[in-house]
Amino acid sequence: MNVLLIGDVIGRTGRRAVKSVLPKLIEELNIDFVVLNGENLAHGNGITKSVFQEMIEVKVDVITSGNHTFDKKEVYEIIDDERLLRPANLPPSAPGKGFNVFEKNGYKVAIINLMGRAFMGMVLDCPFRKFDEIYEIIKGKVDYVIVDFHAEATSEKQAFGYYVDSRADIVFGTHTHVPTADERFLPGGTAFISDVGMTGALDSVIGVRKDEIIKKFISGIPQKYEPAEGQFIFNSLYVNLKDRNLKRIQIKE
Amino acid sequence: MNVLLIGDVIGRTGRRAVKSVLPKLIEELNIDFVVLNGENLAHGNGITKSVFQEMIEVKVDVITSGNHTFDKKEVYEIIDDERLLRPANLPPSAPGKGFNVFEKNGYKVAIINLMGRAFMGMVLDCPFRKFDEIYEIIKGKVDYVIVDFHAEATSEKQAFGYYVDSRADIVFGTHTHVPTADERFLPGGTAFISDVGMTGALDSVIGVRKDEIIKKFISGIPQKYEPAEGQFIFNSLYVNLKDRNLKRIQIKE
Amino acid sequence: MNVLLIGDVIGRTGRRAVKSVLPKLIEELNIDFVVLNGENLAHGNGITKSVFQEMIEVKVDVITSGNHTFDKKEVYEIIDDERLLRPANLPPSAPGKGFNVFEKNGYKVAIINLMGRAFMGMVLDCPFRKFDEIYEIIKGKVDYVIVDFHAEATSEKQAFGYYVDSRADIVFGTHTHVPTADERFLPGGTAFISDVGMTGALDSVIGVRKDEIIKKFISGIPQKYEPAEGQFIFNSLYVNLKDRNLKRIQIKE
Amino acid sequence: MNVLLIGDVIGRTGRRAVKSVLPKLIEELNIDFVVLNGENLAHGNGITKSVFQEMIEVKVDVITSGNHTFDKKEVYEIIDDERLLRPANLPPSAPGKGFNVFEKNGYKVAIINLMGRAFMGMVLDCPFRKFDEIYEIIKGKVDYVIVDFHAEATSEKQAFGYYVDSRADIVFGTHTHVPTADERFLPGGTAFISDVGMTGALDSVIGVRKDEIIKKFISGIPQKYEPAEGQFIFNSLYVNLKDRNLKRIQIKE
Ligand SMILES: [Fe+2]
Ligand SMILES: [Fe+2]
Ligand SMILES: [Fe+2]
Ligand SMILES: [Fe+2]
Ligand SMILES: [Fe+2]
Ligand SMILES: [Fe+2]
Ligand SMILES: [Fe+2]
Ligand SMILES: [Fe+2]
Repeated sequence: MNVLLIGDVIGRTGRRAVKSVLPKLIEELNIDFVVLNGENLAHGNGITKSVFQEMIEVKVDVITSGNHTFDKKEVYEIIDDERLLRPANLPPSAPGKGFNVFEKNGYKVAIINLMGRAFMGMVLDCPFRKFDEIYEIIKGKVDYVIVDFHAEATSEKQAFGYYVDSRADIVFGTHTHVPTADERFLPGGTAFISDVGMTGALDSVIGVRKDEIIKKFISGIPQKYEPAEGQFIFNSLYVNLKDRNLKRIQIKE
Repeated sequence: MNVLLIGDVIGRTGRRAVKSVLPKLIEELNIDFVVLNGENLAHGNGITKSVFQEMIEVKVDVITSGNHTFDKKEVYEIIDDERLLRPANLPPSAPGKGFNVFEKNGYKVAIINLMGRAFMGMVLDCPFRKFDEIYEIIKGKVDYVIVDFHAEATSEKQAFGYYVDSRADIVFGTHTHVPTADERFLPGGTAFISDVGMTGALDSVIGVRKDEIIKKFISGIPQKYEPAEGQFIFNSLYVNLKDRNLKRIQIKE
Repeated sequence: MNVLLIGDVIGRTGRRAVKSVLPKLIEELNIDFVVLNGENLAHGNGITKSVFQEMIEVKVDVITSGNHTFDKKEVYEIIDDERLLRPANLPPSAPGKGFNVFEKNGYKVAIINLMGRAFMGMVLDCPFRKFDEIYEIIKGKVDYVIVDFHAEATSEKQAFGYYVDSRADIVFGTHTHVPTADERFLPGGTAFISDVGMTGALDSVIGVRKDEIIKKFISGIPQKYEPAEGQFIFNSLYVNLKDRNLKRIQIKE
Repeated sequence: MNVLLIGDVIGRTGRRAVKSVLPKLIEELNIDFVVLNGENLAHGNGITKSVFQEMIEVKVDVITSGNHTFDKKEVYEIIDDERLLRPANLPPSAPGKGFNVFEKNGYKVAIINLMGRAFMGMVLDCPFRKFDEIYEIIKGKVDYVIVDFHAEATSEKQAFGYYVDSRADIVFGTHTHVPTADERFLPGGTAFISDVGMTGALDSVIGVRKDEIIKKFISGIPQKYEPAEGQFIFNSLYVNLKDRNLKRIQIKE
């Protein structure tokens, strides 16, 4: 099975990048399954029904998310869509679901969305034990297990990778919006990358207009952040699970 | 001028990697100047005279540092060595210096060491304004300006890159211990990478033995961290400032 | 000189408490000078012209603030009013001023507003050195120096108190919204309290409706916070600088 | 039943304060049960067998703890003592226990130790749901439920108080080392205080020698912290659960 993992897609420019690049990639690389982190799809923060459908239309199979899942109230319209995931280690009372099993092209694939806790300042259960719990449910019932680990700290991301090494087939990190160059198969066989990186405007600070972010760091006064526009950069990780190879795919407009 | 930037070098395995790889790289790539972040040289945390000299002997020109500079008391023996820098935006009363000008192969180069503040939990002055201050001192008196920006948050790193774009010749990030794949020349001409990544044991969590780190995330009980050993990975960024090209160089043992 | 220090006043209920309690206190205790932290005056976050004037009308002399100063854009209408302060250790480019000298009843009083940095996640200069800087300007030119130290960490608050002990006449902490019972004169003579506590609705979580805050801690999903209403609690510190005594004054409706 | 709650006791001076003050208080106030937070008993950080026994000898019934429980390895010698608790919301694999039921003077009392998560940077399960879980076990089997909620953020402490209001008989906060003046019975009947405050040297920064803490805030360089010595301050909360009254008791040497 060939999988394409896409990280945080930022606003209109990010969606344009996906629509412009993804169909060709699916064809050229014979992709079976596409997972995309959508927490920043709607004007940089949150997910609405219309941006969700824009991604589904270009053959994204599952949309994962993270700390921005509930930023826009409109997400409640689609939170029960089986293709939308929010972090599985949100407390049990949170709406939505954190993992699901998908069947496609003859494969059964479990997609799990988890968040790290270091530096995140959020109310979250332990992602390590939550993985154990989910794994007990799906073990032996699926062909592949793929985890979007949405986190800030590199130590927590790599620790998680080793913790689930051999149990998960792919762990791809998201959230920092910067691609890492540490993609590899861990000793137990799990394909791992600390962060896939964002897809959005190239000339930006992690997808956001740079002037306001710089102004905040200089002045200390909160600024209104807007997704940047212009030339895009598309970041993704390609994994061929049968032949066991993997490759970062970065496309600049 | 050809420059090689090396990120956080972790303990004995990291030092072994540098000693095994650097001499050949200097020759093959015709390197004029080597900057290496040494905050983790001494058994994973801090810098001592002996590890400092090990690096100087293999032709590292300048050793920068970060949040771990003062972890080992022995650093005070070398803190006034002109080749050792600590973050320039530590408060003025901190020992050591945060930038210096070096002459080599006919070039005059200013090396500046700064730290970001987001998530760092440290007492630090503003790195943006500190750069402005230092730049006023060195402007017009050096051929090149190189900054080691030691920071956690990708937004602060990229914001800093744009803030000094065209004033600095190179901004290379350190501290996360994971190389990023976003190296490029910014619009104003500054060579930039969010993080060079660590040099140390490959089979590790950011250079540290993985079992203890995983145990800490699972149990909540503080563990003793030790640098990992075994096969090394060497991460660096090569920048040719004359021809304006740059390339990540990653070497696995 | 008799001084009354009032901490964070929360929304409509807090303003009602001040208006109901302050006039009598001023008369009974023969108060010369009233300082009030106003960062939560306007519906729990920020300051507008109308709430500012409500406080001035009941004889508040100076309104200090903190991390919420700029939450409502309307603050820009009054930011240059000489009676409104924002933290002095915001970066120099921030609008407004961080200290001012006031003359009243024959006394010249400097009021300084500073913020601590631990756990605040804000871009701030060093409050210790900023005090030194301001003190050099006002030294010998005023009768009294009063500091609102707006901060989270008790260690930073107490460290600051000792640092300025004998130079400042009063250091009163704000921000945690809970009064502390550690008011006293430090060895050098500075009247000190870690936090004056909030003035607002008694049946609340730090002045805010408790249901939403509890829901956030349980569910992990961000909630809309509203200032609580109902019976008020008024917290303040009274300091008689001539006779050198001080007393917390807490009034429940 | 009359209960005395003592917060973080700091090093030798704190132990001296307890030994000098507690026996008289027990007699004068007819105390049935004493709970003391011991995370800082052993030279400011951690707990050893000898300091544990010093406290037991002066009739402390239960010793709770917090983020410093495991700072000294010697704690493992006593971690299974039934009178020693560590936070119940540490992960399940942590050694020790987070609550226990005690019988004394004809009363059955459950003591629960929990930690808040905001600003704590630790790996912890949800204290709200952990309380629910423990409450299901002890409900109807004990006369009284007392919780030491060890936490930094005032909002989390007060939210917890309301969350367990009527289920717990007493919630006393610890960890900030500064007593708060918000002790009261919540609407549902729970006796509550945000923080009992520390017991230790008065002339100190939260029990620690002030010079090193000030130096850290000024210089940015880590310092060695030592518990302060000299005149002590003893902080506690007295609760009479039968007559439903409560009173902070603060004694200065
Ligand atoms: Fe994101
Ligand atoms: Fe995110
Ligand atoms: Fe490092
Ligand atoms: Fe570092
Ligand atoms: Fe505040
Ligand atoms: Fe406030
Ligand atoms: Fe603590
Ligand atoms: Fe403590």
